[in-house]
Amino acid sequence: MDAIEAILTRRSIRKYTSKPVSEEVITELLQAAMSAPSAGNDQPWHFIVIKDRQMLDEIAERKQYAGMLKEAPLAIAVCGDMEGGGRPEFWEQNCAAAIENILIAANAKGLGTVWLGVYPKEDWIAPVRELLGTPEHIMPLGIVAVGYPAEEKPPADRYDFAKVRYDRW
Amino acid sequence: MDAIEAILTRRSIRKYTSKPVSEEVITELLQAAMSAPSAGNDQPWHFIVIKDRQMLDEIAERKQYAGMLKEAPLAIAVCGDMEGGGRPEFWEQNCAAAIENILIAANAKGLGTVWLGVYPKEDWIAPVRELLGTPEHIMPLGIVAVGYPAEEKPPADRYDFAKVRYDRW
Repeated sequence: MDAIEAILTRRSIRKYTSKPVSEEVITELLQAAMSAPSAGNDQPWHFIVIKDRQMLDEIAERKQYAGMLKEAPLAIAVCGDMEGGGRPEFWEQNCAAAIENILIAANAKGLGTVWLGVYPKEDWIAPVRELLGTPEHIMPLGIVAVGYPAEEKPPADRYDFAKVRYDRW
Repeated sequence: MDAIEAILTRRSIRKYTSKPVSEEVITELLQAAMSAPSAGNDQPWHFIVIKDRQMLDEIAERKQYAGMLKEAPLAIAVCGDMEGGGRPEFWEQNCAAAIENILIAANAKGLGTVWLGVYPKEDWIAPVRELLGTPEHIMPLGIVAVGYPAEEKPPADRYDFAKVRYDRW
């Protein structure tokens, strides 16, 4: 799929078929994620590929707004190292860029995704950390639910000229 | 350009030709940016399109690691509203996703970019805020330098299997 089309047609997809996502495609999504830029090239990201049905169900039950994981065949938790590298204060934006790459690559591969925010909401972080067992310095930024779409959404035109200024505020 | 190719071949480009970037292409970059997802669909982003030579030069002089703006024909400052919407605590990751979309779309259009981090480093924020005149609640997250590339870089294969875990940490 064309890059601009993949960016403009990406929507949050919350219904999936039961078709599994192959290891090959999962690797392509992770390659896309790790192609994101990072401050000082720190690459502060870590990925937990979740296919275990029980784990997906438990996250769905314990994390608010994660109900679609009950039917998703796959989720990728994207975590950041808050202490490593030379520019740890940029971990959140670096990992967010990696997530966005996953969403676009997935759309290009015919997959549907939704980005479930975790950090910095304490009551969303706690159950996810407990279930995934992340160490203290490794923070789950978000979880991407992934599956072949069982719903169709037209592109959303969010372009808003009022958000654009020239040369200064 | 194919979406996966646009993601995998994106590199930080810091040398540009003098060829200007058309308004049409700038609009495409901004459409890509605003196609990013955001928590609660808050769309907390604001964009300052900078073509004024004096402004580009002043940012280059006063913000560390921004020297390439002296030859860049264009920069886009991506700012976030830290107080608006229903989920303001997600402004940083939402705006980071918008920036990543700009980088990928630009690569697909044959442009080179580099993401200059600003927030949360105080000594990088201060001169940028002063020059751009952003209100208190509007934070410049980063500045994207944009231009037709005057350097070539092969794709960087950053894929690292050690960053991947399965089902739990």
